Amino acid sequence: RLWTQFSPHSQGFRPFFKALIQSCLMFAANAWCQMAQKFTGGIGSKLCAFLYGDGQRPAGTVVKEETASMESNLACNCNKTPCACQNVQINFSLLHAIDLLPADSGEGVTFAFLEQLMDILLQYILKSFDRSTKVIDFHYPNDLLEGFNWELDEQPNTLEDILMSCRTTLKYAVKTGHPRYFNQLSTGLDMVGLAADWLTSTANTNMFTYEIAPVFVLLEYITLKKMRAMIGWPGGCGDGIFSPGGAISNMYAMLIARYKLFPEVKEKGMAAIPKLIAFTSEHSHFSIKKSAAALGIGMDGVVLIKCDVRGRIIPSDLERRILEVRQKGFVPFYVSATAGTTVYGAFDPLVAIADICKKYNIWMHVDAAWGGGLLMSRKHRWKLNGVERACSVTWNPHKMMGVPLQCSALLVREEGLLQSCNQMNACYLFQTDKQYDLSYDTGDKALQCGRHVDIFKLWLMWRAKGTMGFEAQIDKCLDLAEYLYNKIKDREGFEMVFDGKPQHTNVCFWYVPPSVRYIQDKEERRNLLMKVAPQIKTRMMAFGTTMVSYQPQGDKVNFFRMVISNPAATQEDIDFLIEEIERLGHDL
Amino acid sequence: RLWTQFSPHSQGFRPFFKALIQSCLMFAANAWCQMAQKFTGGIGSKLCAFLYGDGQRPAGTVVKEETASMESNLACNCNKTPCACQNVQINFSLLHAIDLLPADSGEGVTFAFLEQLMDILLQYILKSFDRSTKVIDFHYPNDLLEGFNWELDEQPNTLEDILMSCRTTLKYAVKTGHPRYFNQLSTGLDMVGLAADWLTSTANTNMFTYEIAPVFVLLEYITLKKMRAMIGWPGGCGDGIFSPGGAISNMYAMLIARYKLFPEVKEKGMAAIPKLIAFTSEHSHFSIKKSAAALGIGMDGVVLIKCDVRGRIIPSDLERRILEVRQKGFVPFYVSATAGTTVYGAFDPLVAIADICKKYNIWMHVDAAWGGGLLMSRKHRWKLNGVERACSVTWNPHKMMGVPLQCSALLVREEGLLQSCNQMNACYLFQTDKQYDLSYDTGDKALQCGRHVDIFKLWLMWRAKGTMGFEAQIDKCLDLAEYLYNKIKDREGFEMVFDGKPQHTNVCFWYVPPSVRYIQDKEERRNLLMKVAPQIKTRMMAFGTTMVSYQPQGDKVNFFRMVISNPAATQEDIDFLIEEIERLGHDL
Repeated sequence: RLWTQFSPHSQGFRPFFKALIQSCLMFAANAWCQMAQKFTGGIGSKLCAFLYGDGQRPAGTVVKEETASMESNLACNCNKTPCACQNVQINFSLLHAIDLLPADSGEGVTFAFLEQLMDILLQYILKSFDRSTKVIDFHYPNDLLEGFNWELDEQPNTLEDILMSCRTTLKYAVKTGHPRYFNQLSTGLDMVGLAADWLTSTANTNMFTYEIAPVFVLLEYITLKKMRAMIGWPGGCGDGIFSPGGAISNMYAMLIARYKLFPEVKEKGMAAIPKLIAFTSEHSHFSIKKSAAALGIGMDGVVLIKCDVRGRIIPSDLERRILEVRQKGFVPFYVSATAGTTVYGAFDPLVAIADICKKYNIWMHVDAAWGGGLLMSRKHRWKLNGVERACSVTWNPHKMMGVPLQCSALLVREEGLLQSCNQMNACYLFQTDKQYDLSYDTGDKALQCGRHVDIFKLWLMWRAKGTMGFEAQIDKCLDLAEYLYNKIKDREGFEMVFDGKPQHTNVCFWYVPPSVRYIQDKEERRNLLMKVAPQIKTRMMAFGTTMVSYQPQGDKVNFFRMVISNPAATQEDIDFLIEEIERLGHDL
Repeated sequence: RLWTQFSPHSQGFRPFFKALIQSCLMFAANAWCQMAQKFTGGIGSKLCAFLYGDGQRPAGTVVKEETASMESNLACNCNKTPCACQNVQINFSLLHAIDLLPADSGEGVTFAFLEQLMDILLQYILKSFDRSTKVIDFHYPNDLLEGFNWELDEQPNTLEDILMSCRTTLKYAVKTGHPRYFNQLSTGLDMVGLAADWLTSTANTNMFTYEIAPVFVLLEYITLKKMRAMIGWPGGCGDGIFSPGGAISNMYAMLIARYKLFPEVKEKGMAAIPKLIAFTSEHSHFSIKKSAAALGIGMDGVVLIKCDVRGRIIPSDLERRILEVRQKGFVPFYVSATAGTTVYGAFDPLVAIADICKKYNIWMHVDAAWGGGLLMSRKHRWKLNGVERACSVTWNPHKMMGVPLQCSALLVREEGLLQSCNQMNACYLFQTDKQYDLSYDTGDKALQCGRHVDIFKLWLMWRAKGTMGFEAQIDKCLDLAEYLYNKIKDREGFEMVFDGKPQHTNVCFWYVPPSVRYIQDKEERRNLLMKVAPQIKTRMMAFGTTMVSYQPQGDKVNFFRMVISNPAATQEDIDFLIEEIERLGHDL
């Protein structure tokens, strides 16, 4: 290349010299790119692109495109196999897992493999934030099952196959970080949270003892204390644990509430104690009933309290039902108030509930899995007024705070209760003659034995954003929900499921297509309307442009439940959603 | 640099030209390295090292060392702040989380940040496999708490602080992948598993519906089927779920066993059904009792069956206790056999237990959390003979198979039971009018609502290793355990806790220092011996050279429990452990 690029038109020493230097530079950079390609695969490609600018890559450097086909992924383009090109990459089609660390001299292959993987992940991240990409490339289960070879065999596959499997998996994944993904309460892809989760995977340890997770155990201690302080418990005192999701956190709460009232239940079971009754709203999460079923209380031990039109518990109904239960000789032991219901985003009136719980000596739990994030916002935290009077609180940072899944905390006001309720004193794990302060061994508080490290991503995000960063992010999402509400409340074809500004980011509405809009017969209209949201959703998935959830609730037929927890979403995305629903549903 | 490197000793055109070209190359490579440093931070450093070879980096490129101090981490070495050097890196001390994606034009900063993080992780991985590094840099909780600023503030911290926090966290982490880390049943750091976990974090989704986790849901389906086939259930039929750890898997099993016998318990609770009794060995995992306590059965509903000297259930004692319970009018409903006990690694005689369970119509569960991996080995799977007759099996791939934490499966022979036991039909999640086959929505089978994606790392590792790869890895660990056993069984100062070759990789022994070795008085010897293992462990942690667990069991005072599940371990590491115990304990 050096010689062919030598300029024949140069006159005199200076131009000759200049051309020569340019050629040298080009040659060296070219050589480097080839080497970088060899060593780092895709990251090398990006660096080459950076070095040369777009479209100026030297021949011989290959920029690989993401592809989900199973075709060969050789880095050189000489089309000879095997090739002897200078710029041949580490050939993953000849390598296997056994060539990676801890293999002797496995560092090079390992680094190249992980950097290749990293390149795939970075591409996915870029696409996740790119509004021109699909949220989902939807295929029916059988098509996806049959379209690829997913089987697990006797023989190993090559690292090339492994990298290809990663590409394929991500190609058909739902981009939950996409600014137009509104399907669940957990959306978004936080870069610091992601970095923290990668580190967590790399540290690959377990929360049960300080001995094997010293930093993570301390960070959990610090973060739980901070969360309790934000709830409003004096000095952040109390206890808590991170659990595998809000449903399990709620189950923990019911478990310790029962134990607090009847500690003999641990030894003797439910048969030894009176019939217990829990109370929660008819809009509450199903995990309350599921917990009662699992804990041997039974689903009929859960009384559902009536809600107002906005989905908030009616305190007088709660008190009435408590009295009823007492008259029957049963023991009201537990009220689970909800701060942010799943569908309406409603906040139960916590102060009134706290008064009732105090009056009747009942454990007050607040399921703030979804609404807990609002405690970070000076503008919105009043919606949880009274939460400081709760005995326990479920708060899922993986929802409104955008922490990667899973990250759910149970906070408990009384210290020591989790431990005495759950401890089994297994001496093979929790030796009492260790050299350090055993109060940092958390394993005996947990229902689990091993416990995944869920704390680091929350701690690192909090550190990176500060409380004010979470506040800004949450306020923005609530502003967007209000923006959506204002845009559709009087818009033709849209009907709100309930009136008034949203309490949380949930905005519930029907889209009523022209064919249904003017039907007078209520029953007929209802039957038609019921089918609209599922049909729009099906089309939405097929186009892959956006995703939003729908469901019926009580006597209300299928409606859309819009939720906004993704800081990447903007007013334009809200506008897009509205127009997309109209586009997809107009002809129904 | 070009001119200063020009050789004054060159004579004639060719040497001059050669030197010139060399200088050009040097200059270009140097320029590239500066650019790479700017763009990719640490990865750039590695590439530069690759380009120049060690010790030949040009001045001006900075290879950063891992450091846990909070000092500034600027990339250039001009010592001016702010500097205007050509080779200044992206300066993370001026950047915050808000500058990362989804910020406008945030790609560059995001990539640089993640690659910097990646560099930190790669360094950690290298050190994890490096026997010359410590397994742990141990500090007491208060020292670690006070030695750094871990607090969560109102204000954001810079990205530089975030990267430093990552370095600090890893500096004090326990290297669970280190070839000399033997402390838990889960050890090792599998590179494919790690890659898969990074991908899982990036995909950041939830297992409850096919809609939002299409590939992961299918891979769980395929993998569970494969695992059931390996258990020996015809055609791999049945059901199953991945849960957050073996304790929860065991709880699931007890839950569905109870439901199978008395489905009314779901609605009416334990008060409506007779007193239930579960049976398990005195060496079984504490989660059996913990489950009984949580499920409202009570700890006294668990009868512990006697074991032989090797820690295996004595079937005749099981049958005797079942008859006793029946005579009292209670209902024996559940036997939890253990395949691989936590301390001794014992395998209960499953065929005999299956016969008894069949005779008395009792649910047979096998807790193979630790021993399940042996199903992958043609040489060792006979130890689980009879497992195919179980109604349910707990199998933790995150233990013997080296899958990153958490990865635990519950397998159930009867299809549909998990669903009917746990379903709550929450229509806001599990809409019945979706367009695809709803049997792929797994959320209603689970105790949890959201469920972490634990499947991809297992699937990808299986794909990469093949069944034969897992087999080789497991056989190797068992060989090492036998090697250890043979080395110490007659070695002076070592005493085996029980005789005979280990069934699993657990090798249980006392180290008896010379001062205790010749004491005749049994009580005195016992009292002294009790303190030896904790003291050696304390020293071991202080030196950080290796980690192994100890505990008492029944009437046996503190002894070491060695387990080997890390494929990185070799005979040399076993030799090292033995000598290290002698070195640390000799003078006690």
